[in-house]
Amino acid sequence: MLAELREKVLQANLALPKHHLVTFTWGNVSEIDRTSGLVAIKPSGVEYETMTADDIVIVDVNTGERVWGTKKPSSDTATHLELYRQFPEIGGIVHTHSRHATIWAQAGLDLIAAGTTHADYFYGSIPCTRKMTPEEIAGEYELETGKVIVETFRNRKIEAKDVPAVLVHSHGPFAWGTDADNAVHNAVVLEEIGYMNLFSRQLNPNLTPMQQELLDKHYLRKHGKNAYYGQ
Amino acid sequence: MLAELREKVLQANLALPKHHLVTFTWGNVSEIDRTSGLVAIKPSGVEYETMTADDIVIVDVNTGERVWGTKKPSSDTATHLELYRQFPEIGGIVHTHSRHATIWAQAGLDLIAAGTTHADYFYGSIPCTRKMTPEEIAGEYELETGKVIVETFRNRKIEAKDVPAVLVHSHGPFAWGTDADNAVHNAVVLEEIGYMNLFSRQLNPNLTPMQQELLDKHYLRKHGKNAYYGQ
Amino acid sequence: MLAELREKVLQANLALPKHHLVTFTWGNVSEIDRTSGLVAIKPSGVEYETMTADDIVIVDVNTGERVWGTKKPSSDTATHLELYRQFPEIGGIVHTHSRHATIWAQAGLDLIAAGTTHADYFYGSIPCTRKMTPEEIAGEYELETGKVIVETFRNRKIEAKDVPAVLVHSHGPFAWGTDADNAVHNAVVLEEIGYMNLFSRQLNPNLTPMQQELLDKHYLRKHGKNAYYGQ
Amino acid sequence: MLAELREKVLQANLALPKHHLVTFTWGNVSEIDRTSGLVAIKPSGVEYETMTADDIVIVDVNTGERVWGTKKPSSDTATHLELYRQFPEIGGIVHTHSRHATIWAQAGLDLIAAGTTHADYFYGSIPCTRKMTPEEIAGEYELETGKVIVETFRNRKIEAKDVPAVLVHSHGPFAWGTDADNAVHNAVVLEEIGYMNLFSRQLNPNLTPMQQELLDKHYLRKHGKNAYYGQ
Repeated sequence: MLAELREKVLQANLALPKHHLVTFTWGNVSEIDRTSGLVAIKPSGVEYETMTADDIVIVDVNTGERVWGTKKPSSDTATHLELYRQFPEIGGIVHTHSRHATIWAQAGLDLIAAGTTHADYFYGSIPCTRKMTPEEIAGEYELETGKVIVETFRNRKIEAKDVPAVLVHSHGPFAWGTDADNAVHNAVVLEEIGYMNLFSRQLNPNLTPMQQELLDKHYLRKHGKNAYYGQ
Repeated sequence: MLAELREKVLQANLALPKHHLVTFTWGNVSEIDRTSGLVAIKPSGVEYETMTADDIVIVDVNTGERVWGTKKPSSDTATHLELYRQFPEIGGIVHTHSRHATIWAQAGLDLIAAGTTHADYFYGSIPCTRKMTPEEIAGEYELETGKVIVETFRNRKIEAKDVPAVLVHSHGPFAWGTDADNAVHNAVVLEEIGYMNLFSRQLNPNLTPMQQELLDKHYLRKHGKNAYYGQ
Repeated sequence: MLAELREKVLQANLALPKHHLVTFTWGNVSEIDRTSGLVAIKPSGVEYETMTADDIVIVDVNTGERVWGTKKPSSDTATHLELYRQFPEIGGIVHTHSRHATIWAQAGLDLIAAGTTHADYFYGSIPCTRKMTPEEIAGEYELETGKVIVETFRNRKIEAKDVPAVLVHSHGPFAWGTDADNAVHNAVVLEEIGYMNLFSRQLNPNLTPMQQELLDKHYLRKHGKNAYYGQ
Repeated sequence: MLAELREKVLQANLALPKHHLVTFTWGNVSEIDRTSGLVAIKPSGVEYETMTADDIVIVDVNTGERVWGTKKPSSDTATHLELYRQFPEIGGIVHTHSRHATIWAQAGLDLIAAGTTHADYFYGSIPCTRKMTPEEIAGEYELETGKVIVETFRNRKIEAKDVPAVLVHSHGPFAWGTDADNAVHNAVVLEEIGYMNLFSRQLNPNLTPMQQELLDKHYLRKHGKNAYYGQ
């Protein structure tokens, strides 16, 4: 079932260690087939070295039930599914504990847009969620994680397609995109920004966001109908 | 003697440079056979490039005497043996001078649980020992190092299995686990946490431990009888 | 057309990922043929893995028009051309978002000459430009970027050949040299300096430039008519 | 002439990029044959990729004159020779601009002994020299660099064999040892310490030297007549 999608999701998962975004089996990538409402996702706790497309699990976006595969899906599956349900414009999701994005998540701070590297991919601050409540943690934790992410975007009036990443407080980043590859791409950029902002802020403790005009210019020359970047 | 154990300990030692935890011959891994009370441990000052299973030394956990092998065991052997004697639940031990764990040990500070990466493996702060006394240093130094580690866990009422690592003041980390591989695994995670906390604390100088509920949730979904992570 | 120059520019572009100066397709290198006034430059948004000399585009330094090739030239082409027009002594240009140079650009700070590594290549501070105005950003942005760089050097009375790099505020570095290879070389050194100064300044928050005599000695033993370094 | 020594010095030079201590052709290693008073040293400005034992130059330790080879010796040769003349107990010397040692040199600070990694190799602080005077810089600069290093050790009553490295103010490190290999080994350790102390000091701005007893214990278990480390 969905063999092409599973292969694509496998390759996107294997891209995580290549880009130095994960240690051991940490991290997971999924992609949704919007026509069928089926999501291909990494299995839980399987080594990257031995993972094959047959280990990739297919789950239903609405029920969360496994409809194909023999492995248990990633323990973060419920978070992915909530994001797919609430953000209909996204096609792929990545979760990692990549070092520098996680550093910001642990500090509970937004990643502000401090330069054009950020502006080329993210249209404004990458938000850090609030802490989860004891009730949310004790309840359906992974689902609630997804809900807190959605709440953060709704409360701040951010469109998921404009800022394709979030920092979950005391935890780490989720990134997304049009498909699994694009989500991984955004996760790599997020990590770059996390590194650079950390030290720009060391040099300049009062670091403020870049000019709105420069943010507009760089984001819009690569995204939207007037984009002129690339071939 | 114990050829399988020596091979396993060899491979665990070779995993240290692969994970960038050691420079030159620094670092050592051991594993105990609880039935016989024999410990396989790295020889002192032998290069990783040329080390074979025949270089691994077997010592008696109680007497510290070499019962197999021709090389001198690691100069840290007495520390390993004291930990095996006092922490009967552990099966493997690693000592390194891995950069970021050592940075915290040199600063004399505990590694607090600041995020879920920590909580997935360590159930609370990773303690830094007190400084050793002149008498301890002048005496059986390596044995005393083990005693100070044990004292730290006893005084703080920490179970060795719940927090499988320690920072020895002005020195560096020891990590342990159910066997040699698991100990190396924990040493890698310790290094990740050491890196991330260093910079989370730079961003937020008043960094506090994560919520107890979130620590419980992440630790207990991977450890103990209600664990649901992995296959 | 200019097949040798295109091959050289290709190799200089491929040197960027080798030196860890770029992520994905970020970064671009060009070289000018001063006799014909033609510039060979990287195409926009093409992967380094598949790039060939036939992807390199030839543009006219004065009109900016493509005179050879089928790909779109780098979106930063207008910046390169302005620098070639105003700095007649330079032959190659590199733009990257290399981490540590970009960190300084995001912080809006000059890279002062704090040691002989700097002095061996750059004769004084590497300046950070002012922020661009809304009008410059809304206008011919990439051309205006070049103009702001030139303005910075003119206002501070710096010769482009003496300080072969600049930090563009909230953006990242441009480096240049006698040809494409030399420009890449300088971009690598810039990144080294960016890294080292960041942490020298952490150790010594009041870090000041090195002695003028030492700057003179190191720069002039490698550059100019009394140079005695190298074979 | 001295073919074996030249081969050894070649290999020690090639070890510098392997240990990530140098960029481009930066850095140089030499070794002295004390019987003949001849020093084998890296040529100036030759790429590591193409360097052979025939490129290594032999110079006289007293006159500084080249007695074998066709290349120009390293521009730092006069510094090496002064150290060989004044520190008769050393047999090999390394100069690099390795990142973290250079960071401390640029900040003009000693590297204090903050942990056992340091104590295993260096018996106390690694000193940073004073700034050189305009006269020293304008004179025989490379020779004067050696003299300032020697002055630093004499004034502080440090034996070169006990602390086999120095930081030259606003410049970078020199390390030495019993031969070229041992000097490279010490240069690697110096870089580790430079990295770790930087961040231990960030965590603990009032970082002080370790206990003298612990320094004694670790240094003396590896060096001197009562050493018991290694095979």
